[in-house]
Amino acid sequence: MIVVMEPGATEEQIRRVVEKLQSMGFSIHLSRGVEKTVIGAVGERRAEAAQAIEAMPGVEKVVPILHPFKLAGSQFKPERTQVKVGNVVFGGEKVVVIAGPCAVESREQLITVAKAVKKAGADMLRGGAFKPRTSPYSFQGLEEEGLKLLAEAREETGLPFVTEVVNPRDIELVASYADMLQIGARNMQNFTLLREVGACGKPVLLKRGLAATIEEWLMAAEYIISAGNWNVVLCERGIRTFETFTRNTLDVSAIPAVKSLSHLPIIADPSHATGKSKLVTAVSLGAVAAGADGLLIEVHPCPSEALSDGPQSITPEEFDSLMAQLRPVTTAVGRRL
Amino acid sequence: MIVVMEPGATEEQIRRVVEKLQSMGFSIHLSRGVEKTVIGAVGERRAEAAQAIEAMPGVEKVVPILHPFKLAGSQFKPERTQVKVGNVVFGGEKVVVIAGPCAVESREQLITVAKAVKKAGADMLRGGAFKPRTSPYSFQGLEEEGLKLLAEAREETGLPFVTEVVNPRDIELVASYADMLQIGARNMQNFTLLREVGACGKPVLLKRGLAATIEEWLMAAEYIISAGNWNVVLCERGIRTFETFTRNTLDVSAIPAVKSLSHLPIIADPSHATGKSKLVTAVSLGAVAAGADGLLIEVHPCPSEALSDGPQSITPEEFDSLMAQLRPVTTAVGRRL
Amino acid sequence: MIVVMEPGATEEQIRRVVEKLQSMGFSIHLSRGVEKTVIGAVGERRAEAAQAIEAMPGVEKVVPILHPFKLAGSQFKPERTQVKVGNVVFGGEKVVVIAGPCAVESREQLITVAKAVKKAGADMLRGGAFKPRTSPYSFQGLEEEGLKLLAEAREETGLPFVTEVVNPRDIELVASYADMLQIGARNMQNFTLLREVGACGKPVLLKRGLAATIEEWLMAAEYIISAGNWNVVLCERGIRTFETFTRNTLDVSAIPAVKSLSHLPIIADPSHATGKSKLVTAVSLGAVAAGADGLLIEVHPCPSEALSDGPQSITPEEFDSLMAQLRPVTTAVGRRL
Amino acid sequence: MIVVMEPGATEEQIRRVVEKLQSMGFSIHLSRGVEKTVIGAVGERRAEAAQAIEAMPGVEKVVPILHPFKLAGSQFKPERTQVKVGNVVFGGEKVVVIAGPCAVESREQLITVAKAVKKAGADMLRGGAFKPRTSPYSFQGLEEEGLKLLAEAREETGLPFVTEVVNPRDIELVASYADMLQIGARNMQNFTLLREVGACGKPVLLKRGLAATIEEWLMAAEYIISAGNWNVVLCERGIRTFETFTRNTLDVSAIPAVKSLSHLPIIADPSHATGKSKLVTAVSLGAVAAGADGLLIEVHPCPSEALSDGPQSITPEEFDSLMAQLRPVTTAVGRRL
Repeated sequence: MIVVMEPGATEEQIRRVVEKLQSMGFSIHLSRGVEKTVIGAVGERRAEAAQAIEAMPGVEKVVPILHPFKLAGSQFKPERTQVKVGNVVFGGEKVVVIAGPCAVESREQLITVAKAVKKAGADMLRGGAFKPRTSPYSFQGLEEEGLKLLAEAREETGLPFVTEVVNPRDIELVASYADMLQIGARNMQNFTLLREVGACGKPVLLKRGLAATIEEWLMAAEYIISAGNWNVVLCERGIRTFETFTRNTLDVSAIPAVKSLSHLPIIADPSHATGKSKLVTAVSLGAVAAGADGLLIEVHPCPSEALSDGPQSITPEEFDSLMAQLRPVTTAVGRRL
Repeated sequence: MIVVMEPGATEEQIRRVVEKLQSMGFSIHLSRGVEKTVIGAVGERRAEAAQAIEAMPGVEKVVPILHPFKLAGSQFKPERTQVKVGNVVFGGEKVVVIAGPCAVESREQLITVAKAVKKAGADMLRGGAFKPRTSPYSFQGLEEEGLKLLAEAREETGLPFVTEVVNPRDIELVASYADMLQIGARNMQNFTLLREVGACGKPVLLKRGLAATIEEWLMAAEYIISAGNWNVVLCERGIRTFETFTRNTLDVSAIPAVKSLSHLPIIADPSHATGKSKLVTAVSLGAVAAGADGLLIEVHPCPSEALSDGPQSITPEEFDSLMAQLRPVTTAVGRRL
Repeated sequence: MIVVMEPGATEEQIRRVVEKLQSMGFSIHLSRGVEKTVIGAVGERRAEAAQAIEAMPGVEKVVPILHPFKLAGSQFKPERTQVKVGNVVFGGEKVVVIAGPCAVESREQLITVAKAVKKAGADMLRGGAFKPRTSPYSFQGLEEEGLKLLAEAREETGLPFVTEVVNPRDIELVASYADMLQIGARNMQNFTLLREVGACGKPVLLKRGLAATIEEWLMAAEYIISAGNWNVVLCERGIRTFETFTRNTLDVSAIPAVKSLSHLPIIADPSHATGKSKLVTAVSLGAVAAGADGLLIEVHPCPSEALSDGPQSITPEEFDSLMAQLRPVTTAVGRRL
Repeated sequence: MIVVMEPGATEEQIRRVVEKLQSMGFSIHLSRGVEKTVIGAVGERRAEAAQAIEAMPGVEKVVPILHPFKLAGSQFKPERTQVKVGNVVFGGEKVVVIAGPCAVESREQLITVAKAVKKAGADMLRGGAFKPRTSPYSFQGLEEEGLKLLAEAREETGLPFVTEVVNPRDIELVASYADMLQIGARNMQNFTLLREVGACGKPVLLKRGLAATIEEWLMAAEYIISAGNWNVVLCERGIRTFETFTRNTLDVSAIPAVKSLSHLPIIADPSHATGKSKLVTAVSLGAVAAGADGLLIEVHPCPSEALSDGPQSITPEEFDSLMAQLRPVTTAVGRRL
């Protein structure tokens, strides 16, 4: 790390910082400019060390040199990770498309959508059984009944499914049905959940938090990996900005950025990112062209009857058209659908 | 709610929206402009209804008229709520000051700080036993041992204490020691935790999420209240913006805004908001002058030895000075310290 | 517009708002809910009217129904606008690629780049002669000398060029050389400049402001069009968010969003959006797949010698590779390069 | 500056960076960690140097050590600057209150407000004659006629006035009437305007841009100072964030932050920051308690008749009450009104 001392820092203050860094096991390079003294400290990155030094008198700021993540970093593991969910492989040549309703509402709704998205070429099914909702008065999901319906839809279509888990106490239950566990944006820094999902071993779809930096997102992945689970797929689902026309702002640059920083596969969720069904297809094409390893798309047989996220859900017909438009784009970037 | 139809919406589309709204129990006012037709729907606000309508063909957007929160709103309960924690009252004439270390690290550290802040005039003690940390390799708190030390510090000083709970499974344990439970910013939309903290009955300190709107924050309070617990104190702790000089941006306007929208008390946390000990005093004075019912301040006997948040922690001497500067400001706004 | 009255609004307050609206020429629909009264006002959208009403006692908020832009809106002109710059057409089947250095630095630098990008298939040249720089001590551009060099490069390659104008007093000068005038992000709401650029008649490339909503951006275009100039091409160049890994965040959803709201062509600038040369190609592909009518790319023969924006400039070789990768993507979305 | 090399940087790449830095006049400290090599470069900060190095192969990032501003920095001039406008002094013991309408609309409106704010204790008058408006169809100000009315109001009340200048061509005209020139938020990076306002010598009120970092804001001040004009007063007027309840978010921490980084006085504008008249008083008290040297407040005799910014304007009666509440707060922080 680099420690920048304040312009008026005394010799005594500089000496104390140097001693503290040495006592922490860092080797030191001191560099005195006209205005400021800068102390280079070579050693392992630990958040505690940086904060402790930053709190010392005379210190202006501390600049970390190493990324805080290790196991999640491309530095640690240069070859790209492939995550397998049944026969589906994230991070390979094939672009993986996960589709389905925001929430599982009924057998009929789910089976209809599952068959439709299967027919259109989807690889996996999505559907919420435990729903985190902004309002306590909103539909909160069918819970275990929803999981059973998802398993039934898998039976019917052969599509493995991903579903969200929101409570550490439900992990075992959800994992007993699901092929892949989703950590939602609101729980990206629910560290208890991350650790326990990591320990359970099932593949994990880790959505980016609404206001999470790429670094924090990879640190959330680090929680899961450090608990023993390397099967992590990242999902860019839009970040919160000042723009209100769209529900969130899809950070398309995050796709190549994550690929340069990490070995983990990354997919995009244009439904939550835009919040508007009319924008979903264009943004889907853009995300895949920018390198996304897959898509997560909300499809509902009748969006205006949806119990959640209707405005961003597309119909099976629109999904069919999206897949048709996506096919040549995947080819154009050297992949396949 | 107000439904704005697209400029090209057909008569058939308008008719279907009207029928759907009527079937949901709304009474309808239709208003045709030159460009757009607008449908006013009078009835109760339900998120589902708005989303369902917004997903219908021909609908451009839906504008809610009523706030989504009820129990948390000043509409529902015009008189201001006072929350009692032992002898301490939030929302009364007295400005409540909660002080203590970010994390409980040892008996000596905690007791030293507790006595110092007590002497300087603090009303309550804070200290983390279960710490949500960005890195899995950072100190995660002393857990139950930390709770015991907090109880011991309370014994020694008479100060009730607030501490964070991050895992629904720990609520009972934490509540058996603590006087008030804190929901941290990263868990503001951990709805499982909110509901269970609501059910446990202890007073709750609910921090605003890093990217939460005021409306979402009040909806989080609604979760707690609707589970039966009215003892909710809100805490503005800074939101995430593009500015990087400070760790977060304290939204000082949120203080009077919350007071106009809700009956709940609101305090401010200048330590997390600024991330810089040098800015804590000025921002504390600003928050109280703007109407905050209290402050949450990180104090550490030796910030450069702190296991977390050292750079934003002030020393007991600085806290003493802060309290001295705060006293005339509280008087100036008709309150007391 | 829709006027939402406060829950406690008196009959007198409601009456005054109604009268005021009527005096402004609106026809009125009154709708009384249990909690709130809502007044629908049918008429033309004028910002003044909305603000005046919002300032009246008893009014909670005013919700506009119509977009504030007219001439720039797809409502006003349903067919898509094509902007011609010499033989180049923005908004047609062909995806237009503009490439060149951030700043014109010397004849050699410019001619080298111009020939290289021409050879790789670029349609237009870019290069700054008047540079808006954050620091008064940074290189501010070659001014008229730069314009002459750009004209010389056009002579040599046949590529028309776009260059930024920052001072209303320079418009005539810049327009006497350039084929297209650029309004930079920092000047998107420099209304004097917008109006005068509108009056001068040359095609305009209007960049989105760092913190401008899509609506404000289209209002900036409205300034230019209402001054008589319909030849406006919009350029999404990234917005400012909390993410610091990239210089800005390219709002890829803005591309289809603008296409649904406006008839104007829209291109993307992945160089400024990402600030990192390594991300430029991926984001370029993404923007075009999402529907961009063109790209604006910074190319420098030796980025580490660039007098500005080196870190985001790509080399001629990298540009060549970008064009090769872009070709199949344009075909995949039914366009050509 | 500190240059962080990529983990895989070659010896050759490191050598080239070192040579380039030396050729730029920097002295070098090389520090090799296990993963990354870090090059410390001691010398003057120049934006160009940092960008050039960052563009070199093998470089991961460049971290500046020195602030980019010089003349505006507290480093360069440790004693606080006082800016005099007639008898009014910004940056002294007295908190300066500037009040008046958003736009000058008529003699009657202006004189009424001017007399009222004078009576309530304001020190200066504000009022827009040239208005930067989001819409080309909105009232754009009375221009020179407005300046004459402001001069007349000064005559009547003895209050000096500040008014905005938006066009470099108008500086001479505006300066011939006004006591202080305002650079609005949208023009904070209109560098032509900054330089020319700097050259004209009149005191300047420099508003923070909607998405400007504190560093960029001080660089804008640097433009003015480096043109020879040290009479710069900064004005925090709220930044753009995701929160929509308020028009902008007042960054109260920026007040002590600017005071630690710069010697320039800083005031706050709670009217634009909140956009809601009901929040203006609370936020005014907060800003002054946090150390603001003054306030800029919009006052209109009849906000619902205002031609701009009615919803955030307070009435003369409300202003009177604000001043009464402000008085004890200024005393509490050791200042006076």
